[in-house]
This record gives sequence, C-alpha cells and structure tokens, in this order.
Amino acid sequence: MEEEVKLHGFWPSPFSHRVIWALKLKGVKYDYIEEDFPNKSQLLLQYNPVHKKIPVLVHRGKPIAESLIILEYIEETWPEHPLLPKDAYERALARFWIKYGEEKGLAIWKLYRTTGEEFEKAMKESLEILRNLEEHALGEKKFFSGERIGIVDIAFGWIAHWLGVIEDLIGVKLLEADSFPRLHAWIKNFKEESIIKENLPDCGKVFAHLKRRREMWLASP
Amino acid sequence: MEEEVKLHGFWPSPFSHRVIWALKLKGVKYDYIEEDFPNKSQLLLQYNPVHKKIPVLVHRGKPIAESLIILEYIEETWPEHPLLPKDAYERALARFWIKYGEEKGLAIWKLYRTTGEEFEKAMKESLEILRNLEEHALGEKKFFSGERIGIVDIAFGWIAHWLGVIEDLIGVKLLEADSFPRLHAWIKNFKEESIIKENLPDCGKVFAHLKRRREMWLASP
Repeated sequence: MEEEVKLHGFWPSPFSHRVIWALKLKGVKYDYIEEDFPNKSQLLLQYNPVHKKIPVLVHRGKPIAESLIILEYIEETWPEHPLLPKDAYERALARFWIKYGEEKGLAIWKLYRTTGEEFEKAMKESLEILRNLEEHALGEKKFFSGERIGIVDIAFGWIAHWLGVIEDLIGVKLLEADSFPRLHAWIKNFKEESIIKENLPDCGKVFAHLKRRREMWLASP
Repeated sequence: MEEEVKLHGFWPSPFSHRVIWALKLKGVKYDYIEEDFPNKSQLLLQYNPVHKKIPVLVHRGKPIAESLIILEYIEETWPEHPLLPKDAYERALARFWIKYGEEKGLAIWKLYRTTGEEFEKAMKESLEILRNLEEHALGEKKFFSGERIGIVDIAFGWIAHWLGVIEDLIGVKLLEADSFPRLHAWIKNFKEESIIKENLPDCGKVFAHLKRRREMWLASP
C-alpha cells in the first residue's frame, strides 16, 4: 500500500508511454488505469485540475501530472537504471534537448491537423527540428543519452514510433534515410530495446485513431 | 579560472534576471556580459547555436542556454540557499508550476504585441493563468516556494516586475488587488527581498524598451 504506484493513461498516447517506459526500465511495479476519452474519470479531473490530461502518476496517493515532470520524479524516486547523467553539465544538456523537443516538437504534431499555409510552415519547422536533433543532439552516439537509453531518448520516443504514423497520414516522408542517417539508426536502436519493443501501441490502431482525430480537426472551423 | 562564471544577458530581459537572482541568492561571483541587440556577439551565437538567445551561462568554459535549464544547473552546482525542495514530490510540484508558467505564460507576453481578436484571446488566457497561480500554486504561502524564495518564485519573477509594465503599455489592469490579493502580497514580498530589489531593471526604461518593440511588432505585417 505504502509504495502503491498507479498510472492513468491513454493507449495511443506517446506521453503515457514515456511514463510506462521509465517505470519498466526501472523495474517499478504499477497499476495501469486506462482513461476513456472524451469521458475522463472524475479521479483524473481531481488529480490534474489544471490541465485535465493524462498521464497522471499517483504514488502513495499523491498525483503528479505532465509526462516530463513525472520522468524527473521517477528518476529521483527510484535509482535503478539512472535516466539522467550524474554530471551537472551533462544533465543540463539533456534537459536542454528535452525542452527543445517539447517546445519545438509541437510543429510536428501540427502536421496531421493543418492544411495549406499553416501546414507548409509546420513542415519547414519540423524539418529544422529534425535537422538539429540529427546534427547537434544525437551526433555519433547510439542513444541521445549515450550507450544506453536515458531520459532524452524516452522524451523523443514518439519520433521513433508516432512520427511514422504521422508521415503515413499526411502522405509525406520527413525522415528520409539518406538525409537523416543518425536518426534512422537511433530509431532502430531504440525500438530494438526489449522494454521499448514490448511497450509500443499497434501502429495500425494508432493510425486509425489519429486519422479520426485528423478528420475531426480538419472538419472543425 | 577553474570556477570562472560568466553570464551573457540583456538588461531588460526577465530571463537574464532569473539567472542573476539565482547566482546572487547563492552568492556565486560572476562576470556579466551585456549583449547588444540586434548585434549579438559571435560568442553568443557559438554558445547557443540552436536558439541564438540570451541568457547563456558559461561555467568553466562550458555554455548552458535557456534560463530554466540554467536554474537547475545552478541548483545542482552550488548548494547554498537551496532553490528546490528536498522532497521529490515537492520538487515535482515546483517543476509542474514552472512548466505551466513557461508554456501558458506566453499568452501574457502576447498582450503587448497583439490587437483585436488575438489580443482578446490572449487576455482571456492570461486571466486564467493568473487565477490558477493565485488559487492553486500560491495559496496561503508567503512565496511560491514556501517561507523563502525558491525556483518557482524566480521563474515567476517577471510577473512581479514586468507584468506591471505590460499593463501600462496596453492600458489595462490585469492584476486587480481585489481579485488577486495573494499575488499582490507575493509581489510585495518578492520585491522586498534585498537580492531582488537590488537587481531589477528600471521600470521606466523597460517601459520605453517594450514600447519600441510593441510599435515594431504592431507595424510589421
């Protein structure tokens, strides 16, 4: 009871999966509560009254919202498989790239729900982001975090799995293997890790889900 | 030389001031390098090639960009006057509010450079943010961080000093004392701390600076 860990999530969400991957990498046992959208549970609204969003991690009865905040909490609470480097400067670099991905990455999520000029702008920004990740953040490393998966890899995990679905939806390939060889190698490395491989939603189902959302977005004024 | 600390900043920037306050609270000696906008120094572009923005902290020759990332680095590097609570859950709450302010606070910065419908939307969002800070983040505490200034207070410091300038620029009072008594008390407490009081830019000069930028923004298509 003392150590009780619960995760409120939603199956196609890359943000829920960030928390799942971190908990599994650290070997933390938890109960998973699937939230039924758009009928969010009263508990979720109570746990996250500001954003009213998943994921929410509840540890010893106390709720924590926002996937990146949850990742830092998990890292500070369970020491197994450290997700952040020990060195303060390396930690700052990791957090810099996570912040960059969080703020700029919104452009990539805009791709499947915009058209025309807005789409073109998002496409330009998306390619710039991926270029920065390829050249500045990843470099020659196996993972963003070095030799093993860390917090930056988890934060960018959606690029490994969800970006392909977005590409299929919009019918445009952003991540050409020729132009982004390092990101391609990283996606392969990331998805080959057993904890990740075993904890990814089915691509076909995510495609169908995002297609419905895309149609909804594009139909609304 | 080993411990050399340099800060590249810009005098009216609340983001530079976050770093200044944190360094001063911790008693860290540093050299300040004023960046001349729009003629940014080659060094700044080299230190922060992704964003090309101040503030940049250089410690032992290594650059760190983004004020919030710098704050976490400062906290991890110099233990005096802890800015984050010790308890992991309290730390998560602090980071939650900082992230909230960083993402949602953009609406408040939009106020002085938008008009019409966009202005009205930003105004509505701004009041919602301030309401959440008043009721959920601050509560009955002297500071967001409790009895003494912490990282959340530093992150929200711009509300204590720059928001008033924005209100003067747009001719609308957002933070009415009757509606936001707790934020009003916090602003007074925050600005009464000697380290803060001694390290704030002149309001009149900030007003003139933001007025020029406002005219520039509103004149551009």
